[in-house]
Amino acid sequence: MQETPAVLISEVGPRDGLQSVKATMPTAHKLRWLDALHAAGLREIEVASFVPAKRLPQMADAAQVVRHALGLPGLTVMALVPNLQGAQAALDAGVHKLTIPVSASAAHSLANVRKTREDMVAEVRRIVALRDERAPGVIVEVGISTAFGCTLQGAVAPDDVVRLAAQVVAAGVDEAGLSDTTGMANPAQVRRLFTRVRAEIGERTGAAHLHNTRGLGLANCLAAWDVGVRTFDSSLGGLGGCPHAPGASGNVVTEDLVFMFEAMGLRTGVDLPRLMAARDALRAGLPDEPLYGMTPEAGLPKGFTQQEALHG
Amino acid sequence: MQETPAVLISEVGPRDGLQSVKATMPTAHKLRWLDALHAAGLREIEVASFVPAKRLPQMADAAQVVRHALGLPGLTVMALVPNLQGAQAALDAGVHKLTIPVSASAAHSLANVRKTREDMVAEVRRIVALRDERAPGVIVEVGISTAFGCTLQGAVAPDDVVRLAAQVVAAGVDEAGLSDTTGMANPAQVRRLFTRVRAEIGERTGAAHLHNTRGLGLANCLAAWDVGVRTFDSSLGGLGGCPHAPGASGNVVTEDLVFMFEAMGLRTGVDLPRLMAARDALRAGLPDEPLYGMTPEAGLPKGFTQQEALHG
Repeated sequence: MQETPAVLISEVGPRDGLQSVKATMPTAHKLRWLDALHAAGLREIEVASFVPAKRLPQMADAAQVVRHALGLPGLTVMALVPNLQGAQAALDAGVHKLTIPVSASAAHSLANVRKTREDMVAEVRRIVALRDERAPGVIVEVGISTAFGCTLQGAVAPDDVVRLAAQVVAAGVDEAGLSDTTGMANPAQVRRLFTRVRAEIGERTGAAHLHNTRGLGLANCLAAWDVGVRTFDSSLGGLGGCPHAPGASGNVVTEDLVFMFEAMGLRTGVDLPRLMAARDALRAGLPDEPLYGMTPEAGLPKGFTQQEALHG
Repeated sequence: MQETPAVLISEVGPRDGLQSVKATMPTAHKLRWLDALHAAGLREIEVASFVPAKRLPQMADAAQVVRHALGLPGLTVMALVPNLQGAQAALDAGVHKLTIPVSASAAHSLANVRKTREDMVAEVRRIVALRDERAPGVIVEVGISTAFGCTLQGAVAPDDVVRLAAQVVAAGVDEAGLSDTTGMANPAQVRRLFTRVRAEIGERTGAAHLHNTRGLGLANCLAAWDVGVRTFDSSLGGLGGCPHAPGASGNVVTEDLVFMFEAMGLRTGVDLPRLMAARDALRAGLPDEPLYGMTPEAGLPKGFTQQEALHG
């Protein structure tokens, strides 16, 4: 495990997952779960969302969670911020990376953050200015949500996505990724759209955030990998989805995603048995929530070792 | 739906699925299920296995099932035969296509058919001779099982798989496909192995029979498509697995597979709403069996039509 990982798995369960479920995970459980994810080798985790506690009581302890996560060596501590106020709070808490959702669908943008797309780009510009002034070392990412389709509006024009990527990069963000918020992406589309976005913004192309709504999650990740994407969002046990996209659910399962890449001989830096063990910490904090994942159920193949998988 | 499908979905549920579950589906239910699969547009179905009824009581009505299937217009009626005796019975029943499992793993071959790999190649030669003599229009396929790994033996050498493919083609079979019997395949391996097999036996390369044991089913199908495979085995509701490969289970789900290809703009000839409806017929015949599939659960995306998907 000395080599640099070929793939960065960005775990989103503690934010995307927890904010999608009704129950609130007690803070002490969140911290133990973060410890377990870190112990498995995950080195980027979206740990919280900085939003008014009235709107999302699950995230009321965001600052406390960030403080704990900052003590985990080598971890990039990321938080979601929907606006300038959230960014201020996240920077106050000391995060390493901000992620801002900007919807490519006009309808979803209004439903999710009550702002137009243009207003969101302006807000991104303000957040970048704040970052530049207060914490120039902090990375700012935009996740372009509903990039592959929207349950409210239907099709989303690829031109809109590419233009939005260019706009947020012009606004100063370090990375712009694409999110299949509604689980409508297919591998051909993933290849086309990421190829176009990379042609537009090059190395500022960020993570693929893909869902498993219709079972295509890993196929879509493979498609994104094929066209040069190297950062993938996923959540342990597939926890999470999008509350404002009716019928959509199911993040890509971290356990299956790591297994896929490791079996292909691509290093993720994540230890599979420890990753499976991290499910216990998640289950302890959310005992009533169903967890997904085929690899945990089947176990690792006979004779499978992560070091040897390259030669398999 | 006038165009020639770009992909052939070969439905294996009525054979592979039914012989993997404990319950026996009553014959009348099998026939209604076949009708529903055919009505959805499936044009190749593995309808039965010709094995002694003592060993597999689920398949005791194989000849009757074949007779019914022969009445469905445009359908290629396929049956699995493990040996010459089975082939005789299947040809008596009037099938259009035989599929013979030949294991690339020495240990799995003995466990599954109580024969060495070499004995199986000799048996294939005898089956081809019988076909040539009695029913020259019948297609003979070999499915090379445990091609990507074996739960009994562990790794399976790619050289063994390629050699076996060449041997069965030399023995006169029309097609040799690769089966991930034990759910151990990964996309990189699928690309490598199908590429090698195609280099060896060219257009005689048959179906990809991939499992979803660790969630990689669709990603592996995509990988096979990428290197030229055009026939894919799957089962409605993901029914089935391999009883002699402990811990292995889960055929690729036909519903999700068809959705993936159609969403990519690749025609399968299968109508998705009718395919979902065929689940009712399966459930009626096997009320206690869990069915898999994410697309049936999520439904089709808003605005999705199979004709328009190409332009999505």
